[in-house]
Amino acid sequence: MRPDVLLVDGEPISQLSALDRGLHYGDGLFETIACQRGRARFVALHLKRLAKGCERFGLCAPDMKSLREKIDQLVPGDASALIKLIVTRGRATARGYRPRGDEQTTQILLRYPASPEDPGLAHDGIVARVGELKLGENPALAGIKHLNRLEQVLASRESDASGALESLLFSSSGRLISGTMSNVFLVRDNEVATPRLDLCGVEGVMRSVVMREAARAQHPIQERALWRADLDAAQEIFLTNARIGIWPVRTLEGRTLTPGPVTRRLQQLLQPLLEAPADA
Amino acid sequence: MRPDVLLVDGEPISQLSALDRGLHYGDGLFETIACQRGRARFVALHLKRLAKGCERFGLCAPDMKSLREKIDQLVPGDASALIKLIVTRGRATARGYRPRGDEQTTQILLRYPASPEDPGLAHDGIVARVGELKLGENPALAGIKHLNRLEQVLASRESDASGALESLLFSSSGRLISGTMSNVFLVRDNEVATPRLDLCGVEGVMRSVVMREAARAQHPIQERALWRADLDAAQEIFLTNARIGIWPVRTLEGRTLTPGPVTRRLQQLLQPLLEAPADA
Repeated sequence: MRPDVLLVDGEPISQLSALDRGLHYGDGLFETIACQRGRARFVALHLKRLAKGCERFGLCAPDMKSLREKIDQLVPGDASALIKLIVTRGRATARGYRPRGDEQTTQILLRYPASPEDPGLAHDGIVARVGELKLGENPALAGIKHLNRLEQVLASRESDASGALESLLFSSSGRLISGTMSNVFLVRDNEVATPRLDLCGVEGVMRSVVMREAARAQHPIQERALWRADLDAAQEIFLTNARIGIWPVRTLEGRTLTPGPVTRRLQQLLQPLLEAPADA
Repeated sequence: MRPDVLLVDGEPISQLSALDRGLHYGDGLFETIACQRGRARFVALHLKRLAKGCERFGLCAPDMKSLREKIDQLVPGDASALIKLIVTRGRATARGYRPRGDEQTTQILLRYPASPEDPGLAHDGIVARVGELKLGENPALAGIKHLNRLEQVLASRESDASGALESLLFSSSGRLISGTMSNVFLVRDNEVATPRLDLCGVEGVMRSVVMREAARAQHPIQERALWRADLDAAQEIFLTNARIGIWPVRTLEGRTLTPGPVTRRLQQLLQPLLEAPADA
């Protein structure tokens, strides 16, 4: 799947400077925004996370109003699409790791045509596995959707061999963190928990929407440190990301899990938001 | 300092595809090679490390003979320069973290004019500090000079405030690892030790040269786990990288260290290799 639109700093060109710090160091951020029914879903939440990342790394944040307009212009009428936004610190103005402060951020927008999600995955659930790779822990990077994604690349190469659609990853000290491209939620005795992402992992936009909707429905989700024992004790497991919404896990490492009542209830709460013509 | 030569896949162009996985994920490697007296110093060792990284990440390794010829062609007659080589997995052939295996690596060569190193730094030593940022630990990435360098970017922003030229960094579990842009060696009671880099850090080319020369001179260097207490107990501390050779540390967090006899001896062993017309 290749992008059908590619804009670098607003221009319809497909190249960027080989001096860009995004290339040299992964010094930047990204967002993947699902487009459906003529809108960029949860775009305000995506831009809020982007702004948080800019602040954390000392990147000069783009003008969010104008960026949102650019994104809205890319939304195809009624077709599904994914918009990927990359913001880097920009072209290096000197050699070496240290930014000089006079860099001008680079903004890249890519639009990928997308088939609507297969509803069978959300209904029946997916096969998942536990990844071998352990994520490094660094509070300075935790939560942010930054461009240092070699761990995810290596984890996704691992899962080639199995039929699993997603790998669940633990951190170097044994904390359950997330899937390679999703956040994870565990249900036990009607309580829902999701890993606290203070050491690593990405604070997904769909994760925050699911947590918000659960709280509104008087079924708040616990955000806390989770371990292998919590995963093994879970009666229901589900995954979220901006594209997929909620996917139940139906098989994990040979263990069969039936998509259960709590997962179903959260899917029902989420569904109207995924399909709404404007963000709630 | 801007590069005076910039080659992308051998062509004298300054742009690369905005679809490159080096940009999207930091999915690639780099080398920084010092040029002096008409040669690319330790180029064979740089290419050896590059090959190791390619193997570890499943990147299709470039033809090393032809790459070496390209590098040799960039070496300026007698002037000092730095050649930075970036090899990425190449342009994404599909969306998502997982490489499809049909990518073609991208090769970027940059040459930066460089002043010869200030001999005062190697002679008198430098001011260093202990960085606040703790490096994440991931054996899958350890040792390799890959493009995920946000930790180094953030650590180098930290040191802005102090007058230190380099920050020493510990890992999340408290191991001493390296400087932001250098490897570190500690001397105590005539024994020299350097951190084992099985959890994080980069196996520097100058680090390996110093270890090799020390072993040849019957003064082998211990490669082992080192901690804060080892740093505090060190009588001599020195730093290495491909550009600087050996820099003694003369002040660390207010503590004064005199560049000592072991550091001097190793500098003497190294000096002829730094200035030699061909690699030993």
